[in-house]
Amino acid sequence: MTTRDDLTLANRLADAAAAAIRPFFRARYDTEFKSDQSPVTEADRAAEAAIRAILEQERPQDGIIGEEYGATREDAERVWVLDPIDGTRSFIAGRPIFGTLIALTQAGWPTVGIIDQPIAKERWAGMVGQPTTFNGQPVKTRACRSLEDAILASTGPQYFPGCTGEHFSRLAGQCRDTVWGGDCYNYGLVASGHVDIVIEAGLKLHDIAALVPVVEGAGGRMCDWTGEPVTTEGDGRVIAIGDPARLEDVLEALAEGHHQH
Amino acid sequence: MTTRDDLTLANRLADAAAAAIRPFFRARYDTEFKSDQSPVTEADRAAEAAIRAILEQERPQDGIIGEEYGATREDAERVWVLDPIDGTRSFIAGRPIFGTLIALTQAGWPTVGIIDQPIAKERWAGMVGQPTTFNGQPVKTRACRSLEDAILASTGPQYFPGCTGEHFSRLAGQCRDTVWGGDCYNYGLVASGHVDIVIEAGLKLHDIAALVPVVEGAGGRMCDWTGEPVTTEGDGRVIAIGDPARLEDVLEALAEGHHQH
Repeated sequence: MTTRDDLTLANRLADAAAAAIRPFFRARYDTEFKSDQSPVTEADRAAEAAIRAILEQERPQDGIIGEEYGATREDAERVWVLDPIDGTRSFIAGRPIFGTLIALTQAGWPTVGIIDQPIAKERWAGMVGQPTTFNGQPVKTRACRSLEDAILASTGPQYFPGCTGEHFSRLAGQCRDTVWGGDCYNYGLVASGHVDIVIEAGLKLHDIAALVPVVEGAGGRMCDWTGEPVTTEGDGRVIAIGDPARLEDVLEALAEGHHQH
Repeated sequence: MTTRDDLTLANRLADAAAAAIRPFFRARYDTEFKSDQSPVTEADRAAEAAIRAILEQERPQDGIIGEEYGATREDAERVWVLDPIDGTRSFIAGRPIFGTLIALTQAGWPTVGIIDQPIAKERWAGMVGQPTTFNGQPVKTRACRSLEDAILASTGPQYFPGCTGEHFSRLAGQCRDTVWGGDCYNYGLVASGHVDIVIEAGLKLHDIAALVPVVEGAGGRMCDWTGEPVTTEGDGRVIAIGDPARLEDVLEALAEGHHQH
């Protein structure tokens, strides 16, 4: 069961991560590169350590899966899934459109999610059965009458492995505009009704889990590129859509890209 | 001659534009599309009108070239070049990484430039012969020992006409990371030493003029893709580089892309 206490704790975790991250933004710090060439900074590690310290104190029986420090009790019924800085490249470039992702999963399903932007002090919080909030105020996705009206967002063309970029391009050609960059921040903008669709590929559990309660609690929908629930077993292909009435159009456009190859 | 008075006035113009833009951010407003399909909003027009009203009062003999309301006295010795919202697509998507661009050109050369982000309240100001400032504090570009260390930024792959995208990709393949999105904001990040290189194509006078004093006053360099001074007669291919010692490497990488096609 998910309670208001879980959301209160998630907010406290986000506060701790934000306090750990802010001193590093646009400052000097060490950066390393993981085996997949993705960068990790002192700020990523400090933020995840701050969150874990609170969880070990407050929820010693819950599991934790974090991007930087791995899994602890990952078979627990309740598992916290953490990405201390989603969008580390934007963070390194001094752009305030990265975010801290905190999710609580129960029996594998995310029931609480937070997207926190610590520099702009913007926070989206979602919880199953509750309306998503932005800085404490309820938000809703917007209606989208057709793909021609849609603003599409994605972090970068280099993150589409194999031919997935061509599928994306088919869809982009049918949308009004594509904005690039943004990582998790784009999903918050879907929840708030400023962006209509986010399409990405190659996402991992810690990239995805927090997004689902935020987008769905605002009236949107998240699924994979075939319309099935997002899983982390697959290839991390994700659709977030503000107006679920347009989902069929998106799936069709992505599939057309597929038939061509 | 450029004086401190010009910079003071430019700051006042940026304040007026910011006040005009803020009420529209993430609010409801009308959007139209120009003949090139680029969007223009009520916010773009309100901001440019606010700037023009002050200029007509304070500098009735100076020329004005603005993205939204065109040219007035464009043959004057002193011409103000305005882009009220550079990055209108980011503005529409609710992302605080667009900017107001204000330049003063004298005999065709930009001598004062401002990049203002009105939501985050971030302002870069440059003036020939003076150090560039960020929110009033001097900033400097950073050293970059090799392209392998460089963070490259560009607004989006769709803005590279013809084969220019392939030239860009050659360079990107030699850099450490590419971050997408950002429009004028990326040039400010070069001035502040967080981003090393920005490469774009298809920019117009109002996109470029304000950037030059900001980037060069911080120790960087702006030129076209052949190393020549940026002109607005050409194809709007722009390089901004924080460490001029890497310029030859960038020109070479872009040219290699050219030889392949």
